[in-house]
Amino acid sequence: MPEILGHNFIAGQRSATGQQTLHSLDASTGQALPYRFTQASETEVDQAARAAAAAFAEFRQLAPARRAEFLDAIADELDELDDSFVAIVCQETALPAARIQGERGRTSGQMRLFAQVLRRGDFLGARIDQALPQRQPLPRTDLRQMRIGVGPVAVFGASNFPLAFSTAGGDTAAALAAGCPVVFKAHSGHMATADQVACAIVRAAERTGMPKGVFNMVFGAGVGEWLVKHPAIQAVGFTGSLKGGDALCRMAAERPQPIPVFAEMSSINPVILLPGALAKRGETIARELAGSVCLGAGQFCTNPGLVIGLRGGAFDQLLAQLGQHLQQQPGQTLLNAGGLRSYENGLTHLHAHAGVEHLAGEPQQGAEARAQLFKADARLLIESDSALQEEVFGPTTVAVEVADDAELSAALLGLRGQLTATLIGEPQDLEAYAWLVPLLEEKVGRILVNGYPTGVEVCDAMVHGGPYPATSDARGTSVGTLAIDRFLRPVCYQNYPQALLPQALQDANPLGLRRLVDGQWHHGAL
Amino acid sequence: MPEILGHNFIAGQRSATGQQTLHSLDASTGQALPYRFTQASETEVDQAARAAAAAFAEFRQLAPARRAEFLDAIADELDELDDSFVAIVCQETALPAARIQGERGRTSGQMRLFAQVLRRGDFLGARIDQALPQRQPLPRTDLRQMRIGVGPVAVFGASNFPLAFSTAGGDTAAALAAGCPVVFKAHSGHMATADQVACAIVRAAERTGMPKGVFNMVFGAGVGEWLVKHPAIQAVGFTGSLKGGDALCRMAAERPQPIPVFAEMSSINPVILLPGALAKRGETIARELAGSVCLGAGQFCTNPGLVIGLRGGAFDQLLAQLGQHLQQQPGQTLLNAGGLRSYENGLTHLHAHAGVEHLAGEPQQGAEARAQLFKADARLLIESDSALQEEVFGPTTVAVEVADDAELSAALLGLRGQLTATLIGEPQDLEAYAWLVPLLEEKVGRILVNGYPTGVEVCDAMVHGGPYPATSDARGTSVGTLAIDRFLRPVCYQNYPQALLPQALQDANPLGLRRLVDGQWHHGAL
Repeated sequence: MPEILGHNFIAGQRSATGQQTLHSLDASTGQALPYRFTQASETEVDQAARAAAAAFAEFRQLAPARRAEFLDAIADELDELDDSFVAIVCQETALPAARIQGERGRTSGQMRLFAQVLRRGDFLGARIDQALPQRQPLPRTDLRQMRIGVGPVAVFGASNFPLAFSTAGGDTAAALAAGCPVVFKAHSGHMATADQVACAIVRAAERTGMPKGVFNMVFGAGVGEWLVKHPAIQAVGFTGSLKGGDALCRMAAERPQPIPVFAEMSSINPVILLPGALAKRGETIARELAGSVCLGAGQFCTNPGLVIGLRGGAFDQLLAQLGQHLQQQPGQTLLNAGGLRSYENGLTHLHAHAGVEHLAGEPQQGAEARAQLFKADARLLIESDSALQEEVFGPTTVAVEVADDAELSAALLGLRGQLTATLIGEPQDLEAYAWLVPLLEEKVGRILVNGYPTGVEVCDAMVHGGPYPATSDARGTSVGTLAIDRFLRPVCYQNYPQALLPQALQDANPLGLRRLVDGQWHHGAL
Repeated sequence: MPEILGHNFIAGQRSATGQQTLHSLDASTGQALPYRFTQASETEVDQAARAAAAAFAEFRQLAPARRAEFLDAIADELDELDDSFVAIVCQETALPAARIQGERGRTSGQMRLFAQVLRRGDFLGARIDQALPQRQPLPRTDLRQMRIGVGPVAVFGASNFPLAFSTAGGDTAAALAAGCPVVFKAHSGHMATADQVACAIVRAAERTGMPKGVFNMVFGAGVGEWLVKHPAIQAVGFTGSLKGGDALCRMAAERPQPIPVFAEMSSINPVILLPGALAKRGETIARELAGSVCLGAGQFCTNPGLVIGLRGGAFDQLLAQLGQHLQQQPGQTLLNAGGLRSYENGLTHLHAHAGVEHLAGEPQQGAEARAQLFKADARLLIESDSALQEEVFGPTTVAVEVADDAELSAALLGLRGQLTATLIGEPQDLEAYAWLVPLLEEKVGRILVNGYPTGVEVCDAMVHGGPYPATSDARGTSVGTLAIDRFLRPVCYQNYPQALLPQALQDANPLGLRRLVDGQWHHGAL
């Protein structure tokens, strides 16, 4: 069993000056694990934020290739964590070992992907407008622009991806790539995991000569508010509940200096089953959809929580088959007891709603989550009834039957913002329903055709974002390389001598960037 | 005298169902001009926002070249406005005709610049990750990303640029370029100007076949709140006071669906005079600086409101010369009576402050603004005293003398976020004070060397933005082509058939874009 110190991480050191001790729980048994953590004091949160601020100037000015070395080193350290680490993650989350091994690969993979972004250099957004001394009526002076990190970033990880959306997850990777030191608030659901991952990041920082304070982590409930309100913090990344995300946004907006919050919060991810596909391959769709609903015990942001079809025998049959699949699913242990309580509350609300009918699923009882299928009146969507707008985090989905295309359109227009929407259709369906695409573009961040929304690829083209309440800012993504944009801001240099310019903007183009020069893309030196 | 109807602009029609009549004032005399405007009712604001929403789907899906035609047509219409138009702007703002003619050129020029951005197409941010069906352990499906407009945008123009930052100004140009219909709140300081410019935009929209509702304008005080709270509005652009911008940000954050606000608000634009330059060309600097302080009666966001120098005879002499220049400036008429009252209040605060000394300037009285020079203790900056942080909008600047480099650093660290900072120095100064650059990068959006911050070039590399309170979001600019980014959000298309994909993402690359394909920049078809 590896040693887990359980102290806060501040400027490359460990600190435990607080009085309150926290325990990590075994997700399957609810019993305390033999690891103790010391909740950060307000002073320690202040020290962590100041450490990040102190590291900022040096870290953001490192050549992008140096920050790439750091990210690659984090990836290597993550890959070297051994089976005992995997065992701890499994204990804390009840997730299977194969899933954790896969997620570790995804987490180190996204660090390496951001390292590539840094080496490619286009994240810098270099633009040059050269002087036009002869221009009439007024000359133009030399103007150059590039993007720099916004400053220290506070990151709040998710419970459901203890690696890929947590301590060394996507928000941390994006912030570090942007040149922003991070203060991470360890998730209470996997503190031992967080401790080990933070140690890996700190080893990588030491190995690659990063400034102390480039990465800091604090343990504890309630410490997040101190962090978000700290004047040194310049942006916040968050993955979690709508309530939690809204609260952080409010705190950030009420600061003397308001800061942006990128919160990924709540999505029910509608899946629209088109008639041709239902007729041709309803049975397959029912099986695949059940698999997507139950994957990871339904604990994915992109879990399909809403299935929409046109009234008729084919949709009835699909629901019957989907219900059978869900009914047969064995119970699954959720990430923690709080998750199970939320799931049970969500089911209770659906059961109690006059417009919602329970179609299938073993009664929910005991310590495991049972998969459920409900059916709701289309008018609940059309009237934006809150019962259908709230994510029920677990293996449950709600079917909605619409009478015709007009009702389908009205139902979709009633939806709030979503991370994803999915169209399942044959080629003739997609042709007939092409009008759905612009409607869905205005509602979601990602539209899938003939796939299932669970399983989010980490790549340049991914968008894991969307209009509120899917996220707090539809202009960002928390998965994929575009995530770096959230933590960058442009700076303009006017009439600068070459020696004073950052490398990205020097005539000689030492970073080998593609730059927008006088309105044209340009490669090479000036 | 051209006909000024004074009705609101809704979906290409004029509407005046409200009861309240507004008058435009002659800025020089304070007398009502013979133009009447009908304040928008809440119903009309609702209609204007709905008209914008109704136009959105069609407008955002137009080929970028079609929207470019629209922007070019607006530019042509603006250029064709005749001398009687210029005379009205001058009457409403007390700005000289030559300035208005120049500003009109800038305004049509920025419309044409955004048309070029649309034709270049990189604003779309096209990214493609092709399918990897053989990848282990899991295949990758085809993923494509591009950016679309966020939705209808509410724009609040500035008083001090009745053309370039108003009805057809930078925010309107950026929003329209992004595919976002606009609802413009006419500035009460130049309603006749706004009416004529809005007519020009509507003519351009009709001529190029744009959807009704692509541009709407409402008159009136207090109507802005209805607009910002309207559910159809998805973003806000604002230029004006810190108080006004903060209020809009709060309203937007408290909506059931919060939306982003891009407010350009308050900046005092420090100018740092380095010793070598003072010794060598102090007299020239004094003259040029006085010119920048008094340009446009000091009514520029980038007016140099703070002059910092190192203690010594050279700085004393500079202040004496600067004081003489300012003392000799004739009085100037401000944009409106409210502006004069604000200016007088700002001066009163400075005069009353124990740490501030009045160095030069005729006593402020009458209807014209007199240029003033004050000197403040460095500790006011170091302690972030509010007297030095607030913009005094008019021809005034405050000098601060620092004892040494340490005090210079402390004084600059005490500053809040700014639009600009300026270094005046000889080559040896810039070498010795290179440490100022990273410090200033974290405080401002634009750093100038040996220039003056007034005069903002409209180009790709410009940043007219900066940390709060210069703006509400340091990640944006309100001048230059990067301004379009504020109104775009990414959408991802997964496993899409070619026929359903937007042109920007089709294999054949019909728009001829440079796209990020499998992590490499790629030009041409796939």
